[in-house]
Amino acid sequence: MRIAELGLAVGQSVEIRGWVLSLRKSGGIRFVVVRDGSGQVQMVLREKDVSPEVWEASAGLAQETAIIARGRCRADARAPSGVEIDLDDVQVVGPSGDYPIQPKEHGVDFLLDHRHLWLRSQRQAAIMRVRSRFEQAIRNWLDHEGFIAADTPILTPSACEGTTTLFETTYFEQKAYLSQSGQLYNEALAQALGKVYCFGPAFRAERSKTRRHLIEFWMVEPEMAFTDLDGCLETVEQMLSYAIGQVVERCPDDLRLLGRDPEELAQVRPPFPRISYDEALGILREQGLEIPWGEDFGAPHEAAISERFKLPVFVHRYPTSAKAFYMKPDPERPEVVLSADLLAPEGYGEIVGGGQRIDDYDLLLRRLHEHDLPQEDYDWYLDLRRYGSVPHSGFGLGIERTLAWMLKLEHVRETIPFPRMLYRLRP
Amino acid sequence: MRIAELGLAVGQSVEIRGWVLSLRKSGGIRFVVVRDGSGQVQMVLREKDVSPEVWEASAGLAQETAIIARGRCRADARAPSGVEIDLDDVQVVGPSGDYPIQPKEHGVDFLLDHRHLWLRSQRQAAIMRVRSRFEQAIRNWLDHEGFIAADTPILTPSACEGTTTLFETTYFEQKAYLSQSGQLYNEALAQALGKVYCFGPAFRAERSKTRRHLIEFWMVEPEMAFTDLDGCLETVEQMLSYAIGQVVERCPDDLRLLGRDPEELAQVRPPFPRISYDEALGILREQGLEIPWGEDFGAPHEAAISERFKLPVFVHRYPTSAKAFYMKPDPERPEVVLSADLLAPEGYGEIVGGGQRIDDYDLLLRRLHEHDLPQEDYDWYLDLRRYGSVPHSGFGLGIERTLAWMLKLEHVRETIPFPRMLYRLRP
Repeated sequence: MRIAELGLAVGQSVEIRGWVLSLRKSGGIRFVVVRDGSGQVQMVLREKDVSPEVWEASAGLAQETAIIARGRCRADARAPSGVEIDLDDVQVVGPSGDYPIQPKEHGVDFLLDHRHLWLRSQRQAAIMRVRSRFEQAIRNWLDHEGFIAADTPILTPSACEGTTTLFETTYFEQKAYLSQSGQLYNEALAQALGKVYCFGPAFRAERSKTRRHLIEFWMVEPEMAFTDLDGCLETVEQMLSYAIGQVVERCPDDLRLLGRDPEELAQVRPPFPRISYDEALGILREQGLEIPWGEDFGAPHEAAISERFKLPVFVHRYPTSAKAFYMKPDPERPEVVLSADLLAPEGYGEIVGGGQRIDDYDLLLRRLHEHDLPQEDYDWYLDLRRYGSVPHSGFGLGIERTLAWMLKLEHVRETIPFPRMLYRLRP
Repeated sequence: MRIAELGLAVGQSVEIRGWVLSLRKSGGIRFVVVRDGSGQVQMVLREKDVSPEVWEASAGLAQETAIIARGRCRADARAPSGVEIDLDDVQVVGPSGDYPIQPKEHGVDFLLDHRHLWLRSQRQAAIMRVRSRFEQAIRNWLDHEGFIAADTPILTPSACEGTTTLFETTYFEQKAYLSQSGQLYNEALAQALGKVYCFGPAFRAERSKTRRHLIEFWMVEPEMAFTDLDGCLETVEQMLSYAIGQVVERCPDDLRLLGRDPEELAQVRPPFPRISYDEALGILREQGLEIPWGEDFGAPHEAAISERFKLPVFVHRYPTSAKAFYMKPDPERPEVVLSADLLAPEGYGEIVGGGQRIDDYDLLLRRLHEHDLPQEDYDWYLDLRRYGSVPHSGFGLGIERTLAWMLKLEHVRETIPFPRMLYRLRP
């Protein structure tokens, strides 16, 4: 039985397999707190209830000792989990000692060096459970809405969004690059299957050391045929609010442990506010953070804009010059594109980027040339505009940044099991 | 409305957005077959029912023209989908012409060069739908059983299973390699979270050109603390048969289209037969394919063994010398390890490899040295045996090989959207 399910086993005999978090002794009674990955529970060992061997062995239960414990589950209103276990037997499976991570302050470098053990801590395990729930909820929503999961390639012959931040490898006799986005492939798949998504790792070899950057991060990228910018934004807000709702419903204790009130997150419901880039500039001007029209926002600008809203806010219709070659210009105003970024509240910055793609062959070809991209690498991508081109849109949602916001974390590095950062490739 | 849902719309006005597969003219009546990614349907256009403009425009509906079609949905027992649509209006969204893939035989190189368009064909789209359903079903099963999805890193500082088939890249000032398996990281995560899985791309730079190899492939890798080999095999057979059952239930038409009788797949239920390596050698001997004890099987051996069984068959307890350093020796017979491969029926070969891992620190250290692996790269992995080590097991299931078997495909290359093979990195 897993600890998270003990609430259903009050009055029953149970067997728990887990690891010792702490041992407290008080005369003929010992309190052992145990975790098993699903949660933690206090167990009570009384000298009079167990064999002398078990009593003696239990004296040395060091932190992270692996045990199999048997006893009776009892309701206890004072316990955080609502239950305690009166032990009959404890069996040591794997001993422990001098466990490096102690209940005290450790520097983050030390913790990251010991990431394989740090993951066992209550906070880190809670983050991992929320991550898993969030990802599964996104997939469930997309599946239910008729999106086909399509695994786009990681090894690619050319760059999707510029060449300066690419990891390169030798693919037999050729050069290959690690994917920064599955979008271009998704566009082909959307014309084959209607609605698709990829969900996998992406790579940016950026020499930046901010709290919002990882070298390797995970992204979900839906792409929809016959869909314009408005349809795209509705998909974003529905998918995201559904997935957040699932986390609220299924992981309320983990949220509370991490300092996020589930009720607060439950307010994240559609529609999200929508403002144009021009309106965003107005907000910045009012706050003394004026930037020239045409420039992209930095982190302080995003924070200043999102401060005005309780919900995530869409900023749409960015200057064409600031965005990628494939973005479709607004027919009514070609100096802006039919794109949008979603900015998380509380200064967490951009968590979604997306919009409508160019569906006109000639315009796409012109853009490729304007961006000095080699046409032969994009011949297949141009083909999508040659045979039954349709209005289509899509977006990418960054898992780690979204989790950092949801879980009020200072840095994205805690949202992924083994973070890859500028000076961190181990363990 | 999507074509797959038309069965619920008989007698109603519908709007379909899709692409023309074929146009057949017969006097004052035209038959247009349209696909939209969810399925295909025949539409009937009568000169007397539509405007002269629509009638004229419909004469030129070339293959892959994108259209929006409106009409009334009518039950038709002769139609494969059970319905037809009597059209009121057809609007061309994106024209097409000289579509490269014609209803005739094309060489596979031509089709792979045009993979971005080939995916639109009926068979390829069916394969993609089944892949999506299969992957989602695996995730649903694992989620329901309490496994935490954990995304293990792709960029790694060292090799998991030998160094000869690694893709290398420069990670700022260091060397990094593309992951061949998330297993070692999963083992750390299983001690933190109990039951975990990763599900992502894996890379093998193998110079092999067989029908069972891809350079980039997807793998699901569950890992469980407090679990022995038997528990591991039960997880394999339950997960796999559940996911196959979901494909049978949700994609019967796609299966039939691909030449696989859904009834036949529905027979894949636990328990799967289990034979030892020694018993497998006996089968080979009977068939004149004798190999010396200690050698691994090749494709012909796997085919000969699986021929004896209707279900996938586990071959367990391989020679220690033939398997990876982390496999746990059988305490009763240390020359074999507590591992198992699952061989698919019909000669499709190994689709799962897994087993119990070494949980003893000293033995693992000795194995690392025997395999000439640098201890400092595995210090963190050794730590897992230092602090609360437990019996633990896991496995990896290859998505593409399993799909090739399920869908009776000649080659794994059709099971993934954009296959990466020895001489194929494009598109």
